[in-house]
Amino acid sequence: MDFKQRRALVAAAFLHNKIDALFVTYLPNVRYLSGFTGSNATLLLTSTSSILFTDPRYTLQAEHETTCKVKIIRGPMLPGVLPVIQKSKLRKLGFEKDHILFRSHDLLREKLPLGFQLVATHDLVEAHRIIKSAAEIEQIRQAVRTNSRAFEKTLKSIRPGVRECDLAAALEFQMRRQGADGPSFETIVASGPRAALPHARPSLDPIRANQLLLIDMGATQEGYTSDMTRTVFVGPPSPVWKKAYRAVLDAQLAAIDAIREGVPASKPDRAARNTLKAYKLDTAFTHSTGHGLGLEIHEPPRLGRKEKTILKAGMVITVEPGIYLKGKGGIRIEDTVLVTATGCEILTPTSKELTIV
Amino acid sequence: MDFKQRRALVAAAFLHNKIDALFVTYLPNVRYLSGFTGSNATLLLTSTSSILFTDPRYTLQAEHETTCKVKIIRGPMLPGVLPVIQKSKLRKLGFEKDHILFRSHDLLREKLPLGFQLVATHDLVEAHRIIKSAAEIEQIRQAVRTNSRAFEKTLKSIRPGVRECDLAAALEFQMRRQGADGPSFETIVASGPRAALPHARPSLDPIRANQLLLIDMGATQEGYTSDMTRTVFVGPPSPVWKKAYRAVLDAQLAAIDAIREGVPASKPDRAARNTLKAYKLDTAFTHSTGHGLGLEIHEPPRLGRKEKTILKAGMVITVEPGIYLKGKGGIRIEDTVLVTATGCEILTPTSKELTIV
Repeated sequence: MDFKQRRALVAAAFLHNKIDALFVTYLPNVRYLSGFTGSNATLLLTSTSSILFTDPRYTLQAEHETTCKVKIIRGPMLPGVLPVIQKSKLRKLGFEKDHILFRSHDLLREKLPLGFQLVATHDLVEAHRIIKSAAEIEQIRQAVRTNSRAFEKTLKSIRPGVRECDLAAALEFQMRRQGADGPSFETIVASGPRAALPHARPSLDPIRANQLLLIDMGATQEGYTSDMTRTVFVGPPSPVWKKAYRAVLDAQLAAIDAIREGVPASKPDRAARNTLKAYKLDTAFTHSTGHGLGLEIHEPPRLGRKEKTILKAGMVITVEPGIYLKGKGGIRIEDTVLVTATGCEILTPTSKELTIV
Repeated sequence: MDFKQRRALVAAAFLHNKIDALFVTYLPNVRYLSGFTGSNATLLLTSTSSILFTDPRYTLQAEHETTCKVKIIRGPMLPGVLPVIQKSKLRKLGFEKDHILFRSHDLLREKLPLGFQLVATHDLVEAHRIIKSAAEIEQIRQAVRTNSRAFEKTLKSIRPGVRECDLAAALEFQMRRQGADGPSFETIVASGPRAALPHARPSLDPIRANQLLLIDMGATQEGYTSDMTRTVFVGPPSPVWKKAYRAVLDAQLAAIDAIREGVPASKPDRAARNTLKAYKLDTAFTHSTGHGLGLEIHEPPRLGRKEKTILKAGMVITVEPGIYLKGKGGIRIEDTVLVTATGCEILTPTSKELTIV
């Protein structure tokens, strides 16, 4: 990845935005522009220079990871950065209005010299992040593959009596064994009626025979995330659940069919909802159809009813319709897909056929 | 835990702060006051009521977890909350100035009716969170124990040839097996010269004989975090490293000795630094001596040079001096301790004797 090129692309929008520098406080954006992976950093980007600020824990790591100039701040970040900005010849400093803390903005406003202009900017970095480069797609592909391998390796060990939490532990262990930095989010393992909670935490309860089992997991590898949900059956499902599985799978395939460059992000969402409506299950679908991912597990665009973003080739999104029936259970099927000019490529290699374990 | 009592305690400060409600946007504070553990929520707290806002994914979970009134917001959170605030009889709404996003504050300022007052508040919830209740101490104790058990179970498997990343995976797997929700932060496993990076990520490199090995790990259990660092030797250490280990351990013990109710948080930090100075190693100690923990892995107080907070019984803090020698290696020893009226209780049960594996 060429971080320098990314910085140049962002800086190219400075003139139009009437700023002569951008103060990047949002960590995923700092990472995107600098390559630095530590947990505490800001970046001051001008058209000709870039300074990464971090703390003494990361002195050596920052030297390894970034070609930006590095300044080590002892103590709180912003008071340490202020003198550098004050001494600079900058006059119009852009800040990230969607991410900066009220407090940080307040401090800048109060401490920067008169004649200094703070300018709210929107999407300067995200506009680039939403379209993944070939290298980024390769990294997401790798994270997706790692995640699927971990799922498939662990699938064998699912049987009645295994606790949800132990299954989650095994899934995450396999992720790491396969090369992940760790899970992209808290792994969801929910069996039987608990699967009606779309974001259930793994419990201490054992998996029981003749129940469904919903697993939602993602592996982060070299900073890039992945996301997949599969719902499997522990023992053969009843005809009702079999039909419900068919409904969700049809909805997921309909959403995937609707994806291609040029369509609004609301279209695949509508396709999924219409399919579920034919099964009279649309009211059980209580969330949106998907979301972008990359350095973060939730990125734009959202595949939701009212989303106006137009899909473009190079976006990477999840497609994950689901139904949730209180007291009974839930089914969700989710892939990570890459939008292309003519449709989409499903990155997730794991089978979606109804699986009985 | 009595969440209702916590809400009452926070509401008791409303009059003094000239507010008639607090809009809680910081997730750990929302959890502290409501018991809700989902990843998207805000809380509107008045002296007589509390409304938790979350999204449809959490409808059932919120019902399970909180006694607050629950309102489900479809789509973006703040535009969904606004009508509720607008329709209320509230006139002076407190917001969390240390946590709220610039954007959220801006939206509130813009959309709330004239005559409506937005009031910056500071520390209203944190003032309570910094002192742990008996129940919270029990939860942290449990997280600490889980973490230590995971370390001790995995210690046996350390030998030359094992990759750092696999050791990290094994540590996190054991955490979960012992009951953790997951790691409190990215587990650090750094061998040989890599231990000179205080926040090294586990690499694909194998652990080698006759190197030191730094492991920094924490387990989160039922939301509460823990934090421990041990540095062990793979094969017998040289006299120089042996002495360095002694120096760090002495510094850690000196810091612990300096902790008790009534002393400033800078005092244990100074004790650690002075001890390392006697070994001429103080300049290799590049971070602060410790930090509070609880629902978050980093909470106030910080045990740093300039910290003015006075330690109080019921605070739970880490004590973790370390030395970092570029190209050579690093040593850090860290316990989680509970401040008491007469000193502190070391919660971490794991031995700090120089360990050769």
